[in-house]
Amino acid sequence: MTASYETITTRLDGRVLYATFNAPPINLIGPEVVRDLVALLEELSRPDSARVVVFDSGDEDFFLPHVDMTQVPQYTTEAAKAGGPGDASLGMLFRKLSQIPAVTIVKLRGRAHGAGSEFALACDMRFASRENAVLGQPEVGIGAPPGAGGVQHLSRLLGRGRALEAILTSADFDAELAERYGWINRALPDAELDDFVATTAQRIAHFPHDALIAAKAAVNAITLPEPAAVRADSALFQELVRSDSVKQRAGELFARGFQTRGPVELDLGDALGDLKAAD
Amino acid sequence: MTASYETITTRLDGRVLYATFNAPPINLIGPEVVRDLVALLEELSRPDSARVVVFDSGDEDFFLPHVDMTQVPQYTTEAAKAGGPGDASLGMLFRKLSQIPAVTIVKLRGRAHGAGSEFALACDMRFASRENAVLGQPEVGIGAPPGAGGVQHLSRLLGRGRALEAILTSADFDAELAERYGWINRALPDAELDDFVATTAQRIAHFPHDALIAAKAAVNAITLPEPAAVRADSALFQELVRSDSVKQRAGELFARGFQTRGPVELDLGDALGDLKAAD
Amino acid sequence: MTASYETITTRLDGRVLYATFNAPPINLIGPEVVRDLVALLEELSRPDSARVVVFDSGDEDFFLPHVDMTQVPQYTTEAAKAGGPGDASLGMLFRKLSQIPAVTIVKLRGRAHGAGSEFALACDMRFASRENAVLGQPEVGIGAPPGAGGVQHLSRLLGRGRALEAILTSADFDAELAERYGWINRALPDAELDDFVATTAQRIAHFPHDALIAAKAAVNAITLPEPAAVRADSALFQELVRSDSVKQRAGELFARGFQTRGPVELDLGDALGDLKAAD
Repeated sequence: MTASYETITTRLDGRVLYATFNAPPINLIGPEVVRDLVALLEELSRPDSARVVVFDSGDEDFFLPHVDMTQVPQYTTEAAKAGGPGDASLGMLFRKLSQIPAVTIVKLRGRAHGAGSEFALACDMRFASRENAVLGQPEVGIGAPPGAGGVQHLSRLLGRGRALEAILTSADFDAELAERYGWINRALPDAELDDFVATTAQRIAHFPHDALIAAKAAVNAITLPEPAAVRADSALFQELVRSDSVKQRAGELFARGFQTRGPVELDLGDALGDLKAAD
Repeated sequence: MTASYETITTRLDGRVLYATFNAPPINLIGPEVVRDLVALLEELSRPDSARVVVFDSGDEDFFLPHVDMTQVPQYTTEAAKAGGPGDASLGMLFRKLSQIPAVTIVKLRGRAHGAGSEFALACDMRFASRENAVLGQPEVGIGAPPGAGGVQHLSRLLGRGRALEAILTSADFDAELAERYGWINRALPDAELDDFVATTAQRIAHFPHDALIAAKAAVNAITLPEPAAVRADSALFQELVRSDSVKQRAGELFARGFQTRGPVELDLGDALGDLKAAD
Repeated sequence: MTASYETITTRLDGRVLYATFNAPPINLIGPEVVRDLVALLEELSRPDSARVVVFDSGDEDFFLPHVDMTQVPQYTTEAAKAGGPGDASLGMLFRKLSQIPAVTIVKLRGRAHGAGSEFALACDMRFASRENAVLGQPEVGIGAPPGAGGVQHLSRLLGRGRALEAILTSADFDAELAERYGWINRALPDAELDDFVATTAQRIAHFPHDALIAAKAAVNAITLPEPAAVRADSALFQELVRSDSVKQRAGELFARGFQTRGPVELDLGDALGDLKAAD
């Protein structure tokens, strides 16, 4: 049995929960998706919940493109419902995601930009379609640093030089390059991806629960950022996202079709390079 | 001149000591191997000892498969002889290994599972046969997290996502994938491995001793885990290894030929996937 | 407008400054190069300076080979002019370089040994010619650990095993292996390198300045070593570089053509392996 969500379709297969994002038109991370994530994390924190969760998307072009830039206060309010006072941020919600007892696996097809990439980075493992997966942190190109864990995770996974490249260029990374840099675990041929992830998920789900929980907690103790760092990144994003630069550049993107299915979202890295030079 | 050991064959070539594990039937890490390692570390801590040590195996199928699960208290007692009070653990013995002045190189052919992988991770460099090397941390599949440094080293070397994959899936990694993830320095064609390692070892051994010692200590200061973390991992392993899950799953493995030369040990990753689902 | 330097040729292209090392005969890092770097860092710290700097070399064989071993006190005195009391070291100068608001990109052709590699590691990104780039830390082979950030950066970027290999073997790494280990961001075909770097630099330079500065600072907060560690590495280098081992080995190298254009500098890794065994 699994709860029902507006933007996430769930299917339980034994001890594995398949959670598929379905938030038309393009799976933007707005208040509805965040509300459903908060509820799903609560479901997954119950003692008898699924042991492994596989996240994928019902839209072959978009895993999670990024946050809905028109609803930053609204989704932040939803994110706050997952935590205590002072934790009103997507970054702290994703940090909680990293800490749930269930093992989380991203099966990546389509685009994971901005907070979509940061959601994937907060999960435990990321396997991507070699032919059809794109990751990117477009925030700096718009005018703010990544605010929901991207700086923290990419600095640790990619090292200083490659993290700076990914974040400061705001460029799109295909699956092959993302694998080479360590952004994802592996790029797999699209035709093999479903079987590989299903087999991996079932395998883990059959292992002793206490060992899974203890091992994940031990790795987290070494690899997760401190809450203070996550909160600082979030505060900086919240401040700069209200700047004139962001208003101007987001406005230019919206005039070209931002947040709709079309060339700007399909090639977001290129679109950022085409914007007028900032002051 | 080098001391004599029951389970380790040593040969001194100038300033390079070749130390070959020979503990039939399959090089299990039991009290004898641990006792010999303690003595070898003591030999290598003397002022005029070898400058470089190359570890390999006399058994082409098994480098060090894992600990002898029937003798956990016994090998732990032997490991305690290397350290002060409170350091009765393989993890702390391996941490000492990481800190000896001699440079340690693993020439890997065959299987390095569990504490065998953790031994290799505690050495300074790891070069593996592309055709004939397997690494894995089977602990979670049996029912406990890795307890002798695997969590610490893999989290740092592979990053959060790949470390969680390696540890939570308990899967076998061939040399190519282990290289790609950073578990080993390099995978080399088997025909080139001996020459490459011998040349590397001689080269290092001819360099000024003070510089080698100072540089290794400087890298260690950045990369080695704190003793408290190693002790905590060991305590958790010691606790969970006595659980009913481990008794049940180890029992099922023993019934199929665990700890003998045969399909279970040769394909340990697959064998774990074939066990009955844990509660 | 850009200032004028003796050993660095600069060219401003919009918001991108191209800075080309030209210090014949082979771009050794001596007092002149360090004095010019100190002045360039000061220029780049002004509010209206270039947003991105691309460093390359006018000598196709040598990016920056290493420090001038005959002028250690002299270049150290020049480096001290960039900082406060107690910061008389190349390591602290390079740490300042990592922290300037401008984004720094290395376009690597030729050799980057010792402090040349450490300069590249202190920059924000490193793109290298696949056919014509070599990196190495020859210090241990001469008799001292790397003293200007190499230990810090390589330990974090490559992980313990590969950092120990690079530092303890003092071997030359070609671009392909350097990419595989994470020493550089990417190795690119030589024919594509100029366009790739120019496009990347212009792209970054057009993005909002506040976001670039904030994102770089956030990554630095996670990835840069503490000043105390940099100062300790520098002190150790300064001590060991005066040892009898270094005098003897550097003397042997000088007798063979060290610090001139010739086989010793072109194949420095091999030359170190050919030296007489140290005591």
